Amino acid sequence: MSETKRKGRVTIPTDVDVVPETLEILERWGADAIRDCDGTDYPEALKSVDAKVYSTYYTTRKDNAWAKANPDEVQQCYIMTGFHTAVADSLSIPLMQGISPELMAVNTRDDIKRWWEVVDRTAGRVVPPQDWSYDEKSGNVTVHAVERFHEYTVSFLAYLIWDPVHMYNAVTNGWKNFEHQITFDVRQPKTRRYTMERLRKFIAEHPYVNVIRYTTFFHQFTLVFDELQREKYVDWYGYSASVSPYILEQFEREAGYKFRPEFIIDQGYYNNQYRVPSKEFKDFQAFQRREVAKLAREMVDITHELGKEAMMFLGDHWIGTEPFMEEFKSIGLDAVVGSVGNGSTLRLISDIPGVKYTEGRFLPYFFPDTFHEGGDPVREAKENWVTARRAILRKPIDRIGYGGYLKLACAFPEFIDYVESVCNEFRELYDNIKGTTPYCVKTVAVLNCWGKMRAWGCHMVHHALYQKQNYSYAGVIEALSGAPFDVRFISFDDLRADAHVLDGVDVLINVGDGDTAHTGGGEWEDPAVAAAVRGFVYNGGGIVGVGEPSGHQYEGHYLQLAGVLGVEKETGFTLGYDKYNWDEHPGHFILEDCTKPVDFGEGKKGIYALPDTEILVQREKEVQMAVHAFGKGRAVYISGLPYSFENSRVLYRSILWSAHDEESLHKWFSSNFNVEVHAYVKNDKYCVVNNTYEPQSTVVYKGDGSSFALDMAANEIKWYEI
Amino acid sequence: MSETKRKGRVTIPTDVDVVPETLEILERWGADAIRDCDGTDYPEALKSVDAKVYSTYYTTRKDNAWAKANPDEVQQCYIMTGFHTAVADSLSIPLMQGISPELMAVNTRDDIKRWWEVVDRTAGRVVPPQDWSYDEKSGNVTVHAVERFHEYTVSFLAYLIWDPVHMYNAVTNGWKNFEHQITFDVRQPKTRRYTMERLRKFIAEHPYVNVIRYTTFFHQFTLVFDELQREKYVDWYGYSASVSPYILEQFEREAGYKFRPEFIIDQGYYNNQYRVPSKEFKDFQAFQRREVAKLAREMVDITHELGKEAMMFLGDHWIGTEPFMEEFKSIGLDAVVGSVGNGSTLRLISDIPGVKYTEGRFLPYFFPDTFHEGGDPVREAKENWVTARRAILRKPIDRIGYGGYLKLACAFPEFIDYVESVCNEFRELYDNIKGTTPYCVKTVAVLNCWGKMRAWGCHMVHHALYQKQNYSYAGVIEALSGAPFDVRFISFDDLRADAHVLDGVDVLINVGDGDTAHTGGGEWEDPAVAAAVRGFVYNGGGIVGVGEPSGHQYEGHYLQLAGVLGVEKETGFTLGYDKYNWDEHPGHFILEDCTKPVDFGEGKKGIYALPDTEILVQREKEVQMAVHAFGKGRAVYISGLPYSFENSRVLYRSILWSAHDEESLHKWFSSNFNVEVHAYVKNDKYCVVNNTYEPQSTVVYKGDGSSFALDMAANEIKWYEI
Repeated sequence: MSETKRKGRVTIPTDVDVVPETLEILERWGADAIRDCDGTDYPEALKSVDAKVYSTYYTTRKDNAWAKANPDEVQQCYIMTGFHTAVADSLSIPLMQGISPELMAVNTRDDIKRWWEVVDRTAGRVVPPQDWSYDEKSGNVTVHAVERFHEYTVSFLAYLIWDPVHMYNAVTNGWKNFEHQITFDVRQPKTRRYTMERLRKFIAEHPYVNVIRYTTFFHQFTLVFDELQREKYVDWYGYSASVSPYILEQFEREAGYKFRPEFIIDQGYYNNQYRVPSKEFKDFQAFQRREVAKLAREMVDITHELGKEAMMFLGDHWIGTEPFMEEFKSIGLDAVVGSVGNGSTLRLISDIPGVKYTEGRFLPYFFPDTFHEGGDPVREAKENWVTARRAILRKPIDRIGYGGYLKLACAFPEFIDYVESVCNEFRELYDNIKGTTPYCVKTVAVLNCWGKMRAWGCHMVHHALYQKQNYSYAGVIEALSGAPFDVRFISFDDLRADAHVLDGVDVLINVGDGDTAHTGGGEWEDPAVAAAVRGFVYNGGGIVGVGEPSGHQYEGHYLQLAGVLGVEKETGFTLGYDKYNWDEHPGHFILEDCTKPVDFGEGKKGIYALPDTEILVQREKEVQMAVHAFGKGRAVYISGLPYSFENSRVLYRSILWSAHDEESLHKWFSSNFNVEVHAYVKNDKYCVVNNTYEPQSTVVYKGDGSSFALDMAANEIKWYEI
Repeated sequence: MSETKRKGRVTIPTDVDVVPETLEILERWGADAIRDCDGTDYPEALKSVDAKVYSTYYTTRKDNAWAKANPDEVQQCYIMTGFHTAVADSLSIPLMQGISPELMAVNTRDDIKRWWEVVDRTAGRVVPPQDWSYDEKSGNVTVHAVERFHEYTVSFLAYLIWDPVHMYNAVTNGWKNFEHQITFDVRQPKTRRYTMERLRKFIAEHPYVNVIRYTTFFHQFTLVFDELQREKYVDWYGYSASVSPYILEQFEREAGYKFRPEFIIDQGYYNNQYRVPSKEFKDFQAFQRREVAKLAREMVDITHELGKEAMMFLGDHWIGTEPFMEEFKSIGLDAVVGSVGNGSTLRLISDIPGVKYTEGRFLPYFFPDTFHEGGDPVREAKENWVTARRAILRKPIDRIGYGGYLKLACAFPEFIDYVESVCNEFRELYDNIKGTTPYCVKTVAVLNCWGKMRAWGCHMVHHALYQKQNYSYAGVIEALSGAPFDVRFISFDDLRADAHVLDGVDVLINVGDGDTAHTGGGEWEDPAVAAAVRGFVYNGGGIVGVGEPSGHQYEGHYLQLAGVLGVEKETGFTLGYDKYNWDEHPGHFILEDCTKPVDFGEGKKGIYALPDTEILVQREKEVQMAVHAFGKGRAVYISGLPYSFENSRVLYRSILWSAHDEESLHKWFSSNFNVEVHAYVKNDKYCVVNNTYEPQSTVVYKGDGSSFALDMAANEIKWYEI
């Protein structure tokens, strides 16, 4: 095995009690970087080891002295009470009901009449400030002269008096006898100045550290706990805790219109990723991106000035950094590191442009939940590695790493062995891939309201957390994360701004539920949007719609692309129309590799085909899959597509068929869908990879269509010269 | 058996070839009326029989000489083409594509630029008349200067050159060598005058006839066939074929605003019963009701003047008569007759106010589809009778009858025997019930957009035709049709117009899919509506919501009554909120009679409970049934409720529970839900009825709570004195 295969591209955790083990693992795994973790200390004995040293750095917490001395600059967040029904002449609303008083404190320091909003949600009307008052003692807003049986909400500002991630870690791990870390707002003037000094001081005090790993910059994603310290609300992409009157006044000046709490509150939906975003929220995000990038740049500059690398953790206080947007590059970061739960979250890291390297933190963490007697960390590690590997083979991260307590891992020698093999496998594939773009059979663009800002993650509520309500969106994105396509993410705004945004795109994908940001909702009322997509397909483009693509009731359609897709949803409005097209055409190209009835997951109700549509699958007169020609283009409709290797193949064939390129099927292709082939033509390499935990037999097709039979061991990857 | 039990309240069909059989059946069934049918003739020998004679009378057809001489007064209808996408500089739209040319002919007699409308459906914009033209030869409208990849539709007027019901009968029965009957428009001036003369002439020529059975008055419900003579569109409640420029100009004068074809076309949805009706459509319906009643009155007056009774068939050209509305009474009809498919359609007839008697036509029709070798008409008759009987026991029709070819029925002696028993049973129950209101345990109001105008039928697309998409609405209505409740139907307009409309109502029911007229859609944005319903429950009222009650996305709720019902629907917008309330409370009063897991049919996806809600049933973290207290009131949520005796009991208990009246359960009650008890206190009678085709054992509870065990034969009804 060559030297490169034996060393590099791997980060391991350490602690004061595992110095010899650290050195041994460093050697066995070929690691070249060591990190501390939350709750660990960096051992004196390792300060001179031949490896880079990472140190976590908490920009917004771990300095309660400062936070307590500057309560006006504690980080704030917007929050909405529940809905309260007026049943008498006035109505009292307890602001903190359902919210942990350890987590937040109502902000009465700023002008509540300016920054709070009481809304009559039944009438959709803001209650004039003179019609309500706040009693600090009871914590109640009282609405005077209410309309009976209307529902009211209060949107207000609160301070984050316990950092949400610190609270989560403390509650989850049952920490005792510690101080709650308060989150301070680096964006505000005093803290901003102080932060730069604090950073210089930290670096000066840690001369052995090579890499400052920012956790992260300024604003925590939305994370709220209730009085029982249970998670109440989470949005990994949420901007609610990125506000303060100081910032909002800046925003007002830049935007040129008055700020309303509702821009953030959004009826209590907090502009989550399912919501079709408002112009004001998009303006606010753009403002935050610019301001966060400017300020983060200052910290990165200091880091560099003092001879260290700057690495950002994609998590915790990452809000506003938006790695896929233009401003991000200007921060000047050396690296991004993030947790890898699957292929989508891998690409969430590896696709980030504008940094020198990316690093993926793999699972399982060396925590007692997995590393206990009877635990099976090897199984978890295998699942994580094999799932992520599909995506790595498309767009590799530059480094891999692990976190947690090394001592725990050392008690599982099989795990140490397995990770050693993973590290070697990773280095080999990285070597074979580097500097190339893998062979892409087609260019695919996912069209939704968020575009590239939410590339790979638009469906995520809390990072890789499974939600059954979005399994189809997640399934399609996961399939794409490891498929031989050039994948773009475009927004409706992109479509409006630039007629050429679809140039070079072979197939559009629109996936999700109707009236969500995933499929577009009201965006389809813009004729420019509908006409652009119809024109794209009519002129020869492909489209794959999954779930309720373009679903939004408007002008005689529920699916606004009904005419393109050849299917429509029965909402009751078209029950009077007789439907005669129910014959299935199961012998279609798309279905040729299926080994059993297609798993559409929960599917969608009430989809029917228009007369000239070819139904591939219908069940009890609900269409699950259909194809349709529109002009020179082709459309594929699928009711749902949870992730599986078989469904990944269904999507692959759907994309090829809709792009009129069935002929390219047998290029860099495996007849068995449990096995995939990736080619790196520039490097004259290709690999065949078994994504399953069992042996597989397949026929491998090369780029020229020639083929050979191959048997593969479980999880195996084989490399070939072209 | 008494004389009344042996004779009366029954109508039979006849024909020239069955004179002796008619007399025999007349005697055996105790019939006192004889009718002709479409395609039968009334035998000379029966003209003097001791029975009333009914004669069908076709107001709008069977006079092609007149229709052909007055082509300008042939009935018209509004129709919309399909959606056509502009792919070049102009767009040609073939008006009659997909429509039978035997059924309709484009009306170019009236000013097409005034009465047609070309709509850019992508922009939601009417194309100015100067931007399109019609070529009569090709039958195409050409839109000039289109927007590329926008979709266009044409709304136009067409003549009904073949009466849709005549076409249906001809196509279904394969008639050969006959003339297509043209539908003429009695509302227009020449035909109106002629019609009155024609009616007088008909009556004069049929002196033996006692009852003129109008089939019906002026406007056919919407019924369209395609080029292959297949049904293309049907709406038993549709108003599309009740128009003409002559009428529409009158409407404009009365309404005070300009008519637009879109008022009828409604994006191609034709204001069907799922659509939340527009103000303009409601105005138009009101105008039609008044005008139809006025003109029908003229015909009824002539009928009476010439010594005959006037009976209306609830079907065919019944549009505009609206039997549950005020205007109907002013027509002065003696009777209404209609087809009975189940309990709901029975009440659709028996609940009609303002006529001397109602008559139900029972199934099966004496047609070859049932009365053939191997057919089982007794089974069909039993199902029909037992299903309808539940409703008859609540609100009886005054007469029953049969239709078709008597000769066919006579070949099935068991059928003749069974119907004899039905006739006797009907007369007995009618006798026991007459003049009373049966015991009602509660007053229930179904709240939807249509109110009493669509009492019992709001879910029907084509009369009793099953649609799986509305089985829950149909299930609840069918359950109510035979349940001991005073059932009202109220609309959102009623709620707005009169604060007292809910006085006396114990329980509100809102059932159906979100954003339909059944649940209200955008009506919930009216604060007056939401507040009235919330206030009703808060002050002690009950509410039962089935499906997506009050479902309409607005101001932070999908279910606008979420706070009342204690449940909300996950549309993706609240995925970030943690839900901890999933425990089931299966021992609830509502579920006490259930013998197996409740059948919620297809149910609804993604319903979750608010924290203070008591879940009765959840499946895979989707709430199927839950109860919630709101102020002094109680709410029950059910995800779906297809009709069954067991579900009928679930609804019964839900209503009692939500009305805080669990104590009334054991009054006029059967422990076995396959058996029901109906009390007629004023007449000192009650009955116990076995709704199944098997023997049943039960415990019967009387009004004072005393009880006795009872075994019942299949289908049996037992009468008791109180």
